[in-house]
Amino acid sequence: MTTTQTQQKDLLGRDLLVRLRRIEGQIRGIARMIEQDTYCIDVLTQVSAASRALQRVALALVDDHMSHCLVDAARAGGEEQEIKLKEASDAIARLVRS
Amino acid sequence: MTTTQTQQKDLLGRDLLVRLRRIEGQIRGIARMIEQDTYCIDVLTQVSAASRALQRVALALVDDHMSHCLVDAARAGGEEQEIKLKEASDAIARLVRS
Amino acid sequence: MTTTQTQQKDLLGRDLLVRLRRIEGQIRGIARMIEQDTYCIDVLTQVSAASRALQRVALALVDDHMSHCLVDAARAGGEEQEIKLKEASDAIARLVRS
Amino acid sequence: MTTTQTQQKDLLGRDLLVRLRRIEGQIRGIARMIEQDTYCIDVLTQVSAASRALQRVALALVDDHMSHCLVDAARAGGEEQEIKLKEASDAIARLVRS
Repeated sequence: MTTTQTQQKDLLGRDLLVRLRRIEGQIRGIARMIEQDTYCIDVLTQVSAASRALQRVALALVDDHMSHCLVDAARAGGEEQEIKLKEASDAIARLVRS
Repeated sequence: MTTTQTQQKDLLGRDLLVRLRRIEGQIRGIARMIEQDTYCIDVLTQVSAASRALQRVALALVDDHMSHCLVDAARAGGEEQEIKLKEASDAIARLVRS
Repeated sequence: MTTTQTQQKDLLGRDLLVRLRRIEGQIRGIARMIEQDTYCIDVLTQVSAASRALQRVALALVDDHMSHCLVDAARAGGEEQEIKLKEASDAIARLVRS
Repeated sequence: MTTTQTQQKDLLGRDLLVRLRRIEGQIRGIARMIEQDTYCIDVLTQVSAASRALQRVALALVDDHMSHCLVDAARAGGEEQEIKLKEASDAIARLVRS
């Protein structure tokens, strides 16, 4: 990895950690709503919001994978490229289905 | 609510709290993976698993809403019924899109 | 069914048929794009549009099911109610996962 | 493109056309079910099946994009690479959300 790539990766890592911390808080908030017997539709709204936030984390990871691992693998070519493409393809399929 | 309905609701509440606690743990695990610079595809696999777990919580809440709120509203009829149907419809749409 | 319910159902049926006809046209358009070797990202945009249109058809069917079948079943109560709730729950789960 | 890439693309194109033809048939079948007033839950099952089939077409297109356009762009590097990565990222995001 070049210095720029490492810096970008650190930046992404920090951003993802902030988002995950927030999602953790959302999940705890949902648990509290259930303990307090909040109306189910309002709980559902928060579950949908947490799901979307988690989806954005996944999309950021896919982007990161493509712009680093896939690009490196494409330049290396051969088997390395095939393996990385297959991994990316499977991960995207799991994401689309989840 | 009848006694049986209240008992079912308590049971569901406890089940949902257990699941949410587990999802919170999954989210913390994902944050740890990022801190430890785990391979992005492996992180993505855990994000997909947490998403699916959250989706199952949402489906359990929709079921609960239909078998309690919607059923009660259908028996009450009139405006109450229309409001609850609209709420359920909107919540399901948000869920399908999230 | 009351006369109003039958009229609503006819109206929904006609609306759904119009939408499905349009989706059929979208699918044919996508096939044509592939025959003409259109850039894959542009094809993907059309596939996403057709998916969303199909999703809206599904949500309209869920709404219809809840406001007719489920409401009737809730008033009937008993086993009929349980069966319809289970069916609705399964259909929504399939939809959320698809 | 190399000869092998062109052949793979033709093969994929034919496969996608077969699948799209089948999806078109599924959509027409759903329209027929509505005309014949089929039970809404059974119609929903078919809509979910068609959605999943369309999703598989989308995933095949994403795979194709990554293994051809993205790989070529990664080798070219520079602005070309950035544009293709952004396009792929946006297309995957639209897909995950649809």
